Amino acid sequence: MIFKTTYNDNNYPIILKQNALTDIKHYLKENEQNIVLIDQDVYRFHKEYLKEQLEDDDIKFLTIMSGEVCKQMSYFESISEKLLSMNITRQSQLIAIGGGATGDFVGFLAATLLRGIDFIQVPTTLLAHDSAIGGKVGINASVGKNLIGAFHRPRAVIYDTKFLETLPHTEIRSGYGEIYKHAILNSEADTTRLMEVYPSIKELSQLENIETFLKMGIETKLKIVIEDEFEGGVRKHLNLGHTFGHGIEYLTKIAHGEAVMIGILFQKVINKNRNLYDTLDTIDALINYLKELGYPLNILNDADIELIFEYMKKDKKNIGQSIQMVLQKGEASFTIESVSKDEVLDAFNELKALINE
Amino acid sequence: MIFKTTYNDNNYPIILKQNALTDIKHYLKENEQNIVLIDQDVYRFHKEYLKEQLEDDDIKFLTIMSGEVCKQMSYFESISEKLLSMNITRQSQLIAIGGGATGDFVGFLAATLLRGIDFIQVPTTLLAHDSAIGGKVGINASVGKNLIGAFHRPRAVIYDTKFLETLPHTEIRSGYGEIYKHAILNSEADTTRLMEVYPSIKELSQLENIETFLKMGIETKLKIVIEDEFEGGVRKHLNLGHTFGHGIEYLTKIAHGEAVMIGILFQKVINKNRNLYDTLDTIDALINYLKELGYPLNILNDADIELIFEYMKKDKKNIGQSIQMVLQKGEASFTIESVSKDEVLDAFNELKALINE
Repeated sequence: MIFKTTYNDNNYPIILKQNALTDIKHYLKENEQNIVLIDQDVYRFHKEYLKEQLEDDDIKFLTIMSGEVCKQMSYFESISEKLLSMNITRQSQLIAIGGGATGDFVGFLAATLLRGIDFIQVPTTLLAHDSAIGGKVGINASVGKNLIGAFHRPRAVIYDTKFLETLPHTEIRSGYGEIYKHAILNSEADTTRLMEVYPSIKELSQLENIETFLKMGIETKLKIVIEDEFEGGVRKHLNLGHTFGHGIEYLTKIAHGEAVMIGILFQKVINKNRNLYDTLDTIDALINYLKELGYPLNILNDADIELIFEYMKKDKKNIGQSIQMVLQKGEASFTIESVSKDEVLDAFNELKALINE
Repeated sequence: MIFKTTYNDNNYPIILKQNALTDIKHYLKENEQNIVLIDQDVYRFHKEYLKEQLEDDDIKFLTIMSGEVCKQMSYFESISEKLLSMNITRQSQLIAIGGGATGDFVGFLAATLLRGIDFIQVPTTLLAHDSAIGGKVGINASVGKNLIGAFHRPRAVIYDTKFLETLPHTEIRSGYGEIYKHAILNSEADTTRLMEVYPSIKELSQLENIETFLKMGIETKLKIVIEDEFEGGVRKHLNLGHTFGHGIEYLTKIAHGEAVMIGILFQKVINKNRNLYDTLDTIDALINYLKELGYPLNILNDADIELIFEYMKKDKKNIGQSIQMVLQKGEASFTIESVSKDEVLDAFNELKALINE
């Protein structure tokens, strides 16, 4: 299926289907450089398929480091120098093939090289259904994730579900974290349906019917980012689970979406303590479900909440020195609130106790 | 005097006057971080004045390396880490005080930190009348100038002519190069008037009546960048003198505007050889004038045109592998044309001979 953004200008298509990559030829630039920057692991797994679809001899392939490590400033410098030495022009185009990190990194190259050139996103993970939509690109600073970046829309997103076949379990759980978040943002019905279709790690790892939920996730996200591209208001809701999630991710290096899922759980405890939405029952239910799917909840036992809190203070949503968190106040209804250090400590200790029950 | 941009949104004022800095208090953010990033030499010269105008204890000062050297990726990394460790938020604001390089560098920090925060430009050189207008920001790559950057509008430009009093001759000549370019873009009358007011280095170094010509330069540039913010068309004309100029600047490290002035001269030789506009007479007249003002024309004697040509091939205006140059075809009338290597070599040798006559 094909989605189309509905901005005032510079709209782009999002093509979601098995073998979507066969459509990429319509988006290559004739008589200009098209340079593929691809996660080295994706390249190893899918070399033959990729060569078939991008068979033009003029297309150059650069493999890049796999996963989040590519988003270091020193690596950004080295790849940008490499691309510039290939005499790219403002008409050149980058093609990012890989997961969320690859898209963020290549997108930031495209946003800043020669003050901005075109790029195409070819997401290869479940998680990237989230990060490939909305134009956020960026790299990491030593003090935190995605702290240096830009908004830069791709020319097209080509989401070929064929790539999902080789995803490891951790990657599936990671992507599922963001799908689950989009379901919560959408409705209770979507959330329940998701848990019914994937009751355990077995069904989830088979990814049956996943296109339905990728469609749900993409539609949910598109609606929000088109309403609020630069995150002045409602787009902040997409950070559900991310304030605590980014902290635990940064500290323990677990996968982004796994950390977001734990962040969603954490936020539920705060909801409950403020009598906003969740109850002990809904929290327990989610804990059991996440254990069934194999989320690394035990990581909280050894995590230093003081360090997590320090990290949370660097979140981009913050205003002044107070921490801002997305909380849920009703079905598909959210609010952004200041949360005190005491509240964070209490919720953390309570959550740890609940997990170990 | 105050200019105001006329974009569709996010307009900003440009305040040009003696002691303009006293107006900065209207643009500081209350209850948010305002961080001054200032060229260390400007800080040394004007410490007392700066402290007077920015006396709020909450305003932090960071001195940065003076001139073009701050625009290195490694320095960008170190200053961005420093700012992030100060827990800046999306509501924080940077204030760039310095010349063109300072503005480019701090502007690029503002464009990319947390995906974009506010900044104010306080230009302190003649040259910065050019670079502070139009939202172009960026840093250098090892293969060339300004190859990594963005478009990011300041919240205000506060142009205090008091700072111009301490400019060294080279800086005056450098800024005058861009003023002269704007005069050419405008009309023959403006160009002639400029040469009458500043017939020799003596009058130029006194900067008498300079506000008139800064106003002319700002108005010329504003008109163009508002019509074509992202350089799809007419904004390219602002690159008059820059294709060759950037090459000679990169190779010899002379000041930007001095190199642009030499680039303007070079472009005139191509105009003549194509029977477009200039004649031997107009070229000779400009050579004599530039010698009078002390422009380092002799630098061409030792310059390696092959290296300059290699550099010109990396210009951001290029399409495919051909070099694009702004040429003049009439009074205030310009065209962008492909120029061959042979043409460049011929013009270079001819210009060298004319200079040494």
